[in-house]
Amino acid sequence: MQTQIDINCDIGESFGSFKVGNDEEIMKYVSSVNIACGFHAGDPVVIKKTIESALEHGVAIGAHPGYPDLMGFGRRDMVLSHDELFSYILFQVSALKGMVEALGGVLQHVKPHGAMYNKASTDYNMSKVIAEAVYKTDPKLILVGLANSKLVKAAEDIGLKTGNEIFADRRYQSNGTLVPRTHEGALIKERAEAVDQVKQILQEGRVTSIDNTKVPLKADTVCIHGDSPEALHFAQRLHKELNDAGIGQVALGKLV
Amino acid sequence: MQTQIDINCDIGESFGSFKVGNDEEIMKYVSSVNIACGFHAGDPVVIKKTIESALEHGVAIGAHPGYPDLMGFGRRDMVLSHDELFSYILFQVSALKGMVEALGGVLQHVKPHGAMYNKASTDYNMSKVIAEAVYKTDPKLILVGLANSKLVKAAEDIGLKTGNEIFADRRYQSNGTLVPRTHEGALIKERAEAVDQVKQILQEGRVTSIDNTKVPLKADTVCIHGDSPEALHFAQRLHKELNDAGIGQVALGKLV
Amino acid sequence: MQTQIDINCDIGESFGSFKVGNDEEIMKYVSSVNIACGFHAGDPVVIKKTIESALEHGVAIGAHPGYPDLMGFGRRDMVLSHDELFSYILFQVSALKGMVEALGGVLQHVKPHGAMYNKASTDYNMSKVIAEAVYKTDPKLILVGLANSKLVKAAEDIGLKTGNEIFADRRYQSNGTLVPRTHEGALIKERAEAVDQVKQILQEGRVTSIDNTKVPLKADTVCIHGDSPEALHFAQRLHKELNDAGIGQVALGKLV
Amino acid sequence: MQTQIDINCDIGESFGSFKVGNDEEIMKYVSSVNIACGFHAGDPVVIKKTIESALEHGVAIGAHPGYPDLMGFGRRDMVLSHDELFSYILFQVSALKGMVEALGGVLQHVKPHGAMYNKASTDYNMSKVIAEAVYKTDPKLILVGLANSKLVKAAEDIGLKTGNEIFADRRYQSNGTLVPRTHEGALIKERAEAVDQVKQILQEGRVTSIDNTKVPLKADTVCIHGDSPEALHFAQRLHKELNDAGIGQVALGKLV
Repeated sequence: MQTQIDINCDIGESFGSFKVGNDEEIMKYVSSVNIACGFHAGDPVVIKKTIESALEHGVAIGAHPGYPDLMGFGRRDMVLSHDELFSYILFQVSALKGMVEALGGVLQHVKPHGAMYNKASTDYNMSKVIAEAVYKTDPKLILVGLANSKLVKAAEDIGLKTGNEIFADRRYQSNGTLVPRTHEGALIKERAEAVDQVKQILQEGRVTSIDNTKVPLKADTVCIHGDSPEALHFAQRLHKELNDAGIGQVALGKLV
Repeated sequence: MQTQIDINCDIGESFGSFKVGNDEEIMKYVSSVNIACGFHAGDPVVIKKTIESALEHGVAIGAHPGYPDLMGFGRRDMVLSHDELFSYILFQVSALKGMVEALGGVLQHVKPHGAMYNKASTDYNMSKVIAEAVYKTDPKLILVGLANSKLVKAAEDIGLKTGNEIFADRRYQSNGTLVPRTHEGALIKERAEAVDQVKQILQEGRVTSIDNTKVPLKADTVCIHGDSPEALHFAQRLHKELNDAGIGQVALGKLV
Repeated sequence: MQTQIDINCDIGESFGSFKVGNDEEIMKYVSSVNIACGFHAGDPVVIKKTIESALEHGVAIGAHPGYPDLMGFGRRDMVLSHDELFSYILFQVSALKGMVEALGGVLQHVKPHGAMYNKASTDYNMSKVIAEAVYKTDPKLILVGLANSKLVKAAEDIGLKTGNEIFADRRYQSNGTLVPRTHEGALIKERAEAVDQVKQILQEGRVTSIDNTKVPLKADTVCIHGDSPEALHFAQRLHKELNDAGIGQVALGKLV
Repeated sequence: MQTQIDINCDIGESFGSFKVGNDEEIMKYVSSVNIACGFHAGDPVVIKKTIESALEHGVAIGAHPGYPDLMGFGRRDMVLSHDELFSYILFQVSALKGMVEALGGVLQHVKPHGAMYNKASTDYNMSKVIAEAVYKTDPKLILVGLANSKLVKAAEDIGLKTGNEIFADRRYQSNGTLVPRTHEGALIKERAEAVDQVKQILQEGRVTSIDNTKVPLKADTVCIHGDSPEALHFAQRLHKELNDAGIGQVALGKLV
């Protein structure tokens, strides 16, 4: 049984006057945050304020690079060359790293966003480009990807520490990947069930897939969403129930 | 008489398929380059390629942050809050610094671009914000501004090393500032005259202003432009004539 | 005493996944809407959806052009040439007009946004450029500006119909312009007082300024905000109290 | 034998200070131009200037909408929903149409750009969305697509007039589509050969494919490029040789 886990949340996704999420509130229930880097969301003012808030709350900071598609929030697939992808990661992670250090902190990890995260999960060559860019920027960074994914594999191969990410509110397939959002039953809507899935993964090292098989799953960090009041309640509840089950919450950097 | 000077050039100002300048050629005649950071020009692919080229040519690298106005190339004045300005500098310089270091180099200096550079020249409060952002990112960075300007003053006050910049092809007013581009006689169109102005400044420590007074001027670096074949010829000529006059060319970091 | 007024609201200010305002709700209490055109806010998907919703609600549609500054929401002043300003208005109004017509409606008016609106209020030359661009796009369009402002004056001079706009929750100076937001007492925070100010303007044709003089004020349309639940309540209340006072609400196009 | 053809060119692809192409020169050798609409290239100042120049030269004007990807020049594939694609076309074509009419002209056609053009060529459902958006904006517009493509088919099905486009400097496959740029032999580098291919298509109504079969091909307009001095010479030569062969050049609107 696993007695520690990191809880992470995407954050800093406002842009100028466009406000997204309850960043100040969600900070209380997570151990790591992934800060948008200005490509799919975030701008320098938002990034600075978010870093300062994370430092105040003692929450570990990661960069959350995405596709250069503000209008699509980085959720639309784009066909990029390897050179483009490498450069976009290098730029975004460098900006975050420099700002975190300027404000007195240390960058802990990198977690790609949206369509980039999803595509990399099953594409080893693309994952290798991302991992190389992260390694070049700072070989001490942890690269976070979907548990069992090609992104985690590529990061390990390149010599980076990795964070296997699990999802509380998404169902798994028997091959260990997520049921696509477009499929029925992809989402776990009952909170109790979502919390139970996390507890099962941590206690058994396995998840029960949508077709009822038990799939081994490594879990370093669990992702929660911060963009609705419901999300906030879920964060609180997960935080509490894990504690009650004897599962402590620590930042990823202390786990891997 | 001054026997050494840095020659700098704005560079990396392409964006995607939009090509600007003869970057590869101009590299041969300068000792420092100012690389656009993606706000007024430049994108991550262009930045990476430009850094790699500068490293190959052994040219010192600076960040060239500007206003977030790609459509106006950072040449239109924008009214920003101090928090916005501070964050924009922090972001852009961090991105450049991180990328330069990832690619095996060291960031030498920061030189604001266009309307930001011009406005800061006469606005001490704004200059202080820029200087603070640069200092926060890395206190070893040199901040380059118009010779005798508020930007240089603010940088000194904050504890940064500074680079006083002079222009070969612009006339000066008797108070040591540039004749605005909108005024007649602002530009020196004869190349011989432009070279002579630089030589006069270096040899006498003074420039002859448009109303024929001699104005003391400190010169650490001279700016040349790289966006036309003529500019390239001028760069070659200035480079040669300074050499002939016994004035060596060294990167700013070795001068100040 | 005036027995009819238009109530207008800025709308369609979301951008991609970034949601702004309660557009669907506010539609019920206004007779005209000003739709952002993609420069300071809005994107084609948002614009299309907002036009469709306005057409369903029978609300008159205007274009709400702004500066090309999404990061600053068009609220930061930018120094544009007349050619730039003219072209930006032409582009944005054309896009809105074409989309409204494609979806079966008619564009009623144009109201500049944010910093563009404010600057034009006191700058006749700038206002003339805006008015010319609107006239060129469609001479039947109504140009909405601050009551008594240079923008309304320039629009009249050029032969456009105009909409004099008043504000419920802003105090006026004795010269008929608004008390700047940065001054104390600029905002009227009591709702009852804000409603009373509108009623006074409509009933007396005058407003009581912050230094207690009575200033003549022409009122064709009153602006309300739609970006908070409070704003929505205020819209409902103003709507009702004007009705109770015998002041009907009609779209601007039927008034001027 | 066909005795008339339109020659078209992509144009207005500058952005702010970023200059692309020899627009003024190329205007002399074409009968139609496709003006970028601000998404992949072009800005309102460029669009206005380009429309004015086309009107002066008596060249017919089309809108050239693309993906919202300035950094990739609209050449990278993006996965858009039908609602997004429809709205993007509606917005861009409306903006162009309104500006052309404001400046005294009439919009003749629409030709999608880059990755959007290529993808639509083989995707009927996507083509239908584009055709519907064009039809909604103005049913009199001509939709230009690759000869024999799904885009032309969808446009016909929806009731639009169509322009079958052929390429001088690209080789064809035996199914009538272009040899992909990534394949060897995709480009015809000899100018004489490129001119001959156009002449063959017009005289025989067929093209000789890369594997030496004769493929029937309808040709309403031939595309030339305007972004290099060589392109300009080719335009001149094609223009002259077609004339010598008794093939007149007329704007698309007079042909279809």
